[in-house]
Amino acid sequence: MFDSGVGGLTVLKELKATLPNESFVYLGDTARLPYGPKPAEMVRGFATEISATLLERGVKAVVVACNTASAAALPELADALPVPTWGVVEPGVAAALHAAPGGRIGVLGTVGTVRSRVYQSKLERAGATTWAQACPLFVPIVEEGVSDTAIARLVADHYLKDRPALDAVILGCTHYPALKSVLADILGPHVTLVDSAVSVASVVRRDLARLELLAAGSGPGNVHYIVTGDIPTFMHVGQLLGGPKGTYEHLSVGELAAKRPFGVEARH
Amino acid sequence: MFDSGVGGLTVLKELKATLPNESFVYLGDTARLPYGPKPAEMVRGFATEISATLLERGVKAVVVACNTASAAALPELADALPVPTWGVVEPGVAAALHAAPGGRIGVLGTVGTVRSRVYQSKLERAGATTWAQACPLFVPIVEEGVSDTAIARLVADHYLKDRPALDAVILGCTHYPALKSVLADILGPHVTLVDSAVSVASVVRRDLARLELLAAGSGPGNVHYIVTGDIPTFMHVGQLLGGPKGTYEHLSVGELAAKRPFGVEARH
Repeated sequence: MFDSGVGGLTVLKELKATLPNESFVYLGDTARLPYGPKPAEMVRGFATEISATLLERGVKAVVVACNTASAAALPELADALPVPTWGVVEPGVAAALHAAPGGRIGVLGTVGTVRSRVYQSKLERAGATTWAQACPLFVPIVEEGVSDTAIARLVADHYLKDRPALDAVILGCTHYPALKSVLADILGPHVTLVDSAVSVASVVRRDLARLELLAAGSGPGNVHYIVTGDIPTFMHVGQLLGGPKGTYEHLSVGELAAKRPFGVEARH
Repeated sequence: MFDSGVGGLTVLKELKATLPNESFVYLGDTARLPYGPKPAEMVRGFATEISATLLERGVKAVVVACNTASAAALPELADALPVPTWGVVEPGVAAALHAAPGGRIGVLGTVGTVRSRVYQSKLERAGATTWAQACPLFVPIVEEGVSDTAIARLVADHYLKDRPALDAVILGCTHYPALKSVLADILGPHVTLVDSAVSVASVVRRDLARLELLAAGSGPGNVHYIVTGDIPTFMHVGQLLGGPKGTYEHLSVGELAAKRPFGVEARH
């Protein structure tokens, strides 16, 4: 699995809880974050390079644990890769429609994700009414470790103050599960909060079982982190997001970019 | 003048007020922001490309209106350019030392600026005691337009809660002047708040006068903005930072990077 940084660790945490016997390789491309404001074509290129690196490490499946990369690279990446591949957008949309069929669904995300309308268009095609709000302060609030303070509450109130009546709200950024209790408190008990991380984990478990790809062993799997930027920073913020323990490796962007795309011979 | 984005507009605002007859070309490299977490060598390369573009437009002097670029590119850039060149760090340090000679000086900045210790080492060499705090939430708070709300107050309290007794505090990021009233309120009347934008404007006026480079005309000068990213976004956030009215031009990073360095012939 991969993400532009630490956000995908909320997905890893859920996957690890759902599939305790599986081993994971998590690539955090912190040297090139944020992906959000970058052109979709550039993000697709990053996703291709990273997937090639993950395949080289022998992964049996790939999870794009980043909303921006999911929006930019899927479904093309899934078609190109020789292993099962999931993003975070589809499972979040499916869970929201399941919770509120034909209902009023809110989407919280980065500026890039909200502007791309990837969630809104999928939800509207399925008959839902949507309301979307970009929440640029949420990521730095989580990374600063103040998710459980009055700061987070005040900022969440600010972003939600103009919302219409809603049946469900999608956390459309992998950092946002850290703010789940604050958001649930403001939205109240009648609004279903959809955590894409939980939805993805459930879809991945189901599909791996169908494909008979679940780990055979009964022992606990391990986690290996590959980071393109600074490892101590990654570890520090990773803890705030509940990232599981693992081994760490630094891989420069240069080494990453040198990977040839899967199944394509280098041209001379 | 140039900045990684909109932050330098606080500097432009002060320069325009101090030097109303001068005309300005402001280059906001929003396509490549943030500079903060990028390697200093890369930021130096950006500063060189941008300076070449500004010279091509006929500027008579260059202001590096960005703390990260000032720390990374100066004094080398000033030596290489054929026109007077200033950064924001030196004027801020000088103003703080003037306000609190040998005193206790606080520095607020981005993670990159605080970690570089550029302010702390200059202040300490001059006999001051320093305390520094990275404030990653301040930039998104300013860009979200909530600088005058309870959110800003609560976040500023959070960053300042462990401060020792201080005589002066440097706003070591060009976004922070937008938070001046909130910070002044918390710090109280006995702490001098040093706005680098004001300090730079004063140094630039003094030096231009000494060099007999002040505009001869008495009419008001104009402002031309060159933006590498999205112009509407730049205009929107620019208004929050008090950026003066002007004309706008988009210049792609590709066109920018194609500039040959000043005074150096392209090699074949």
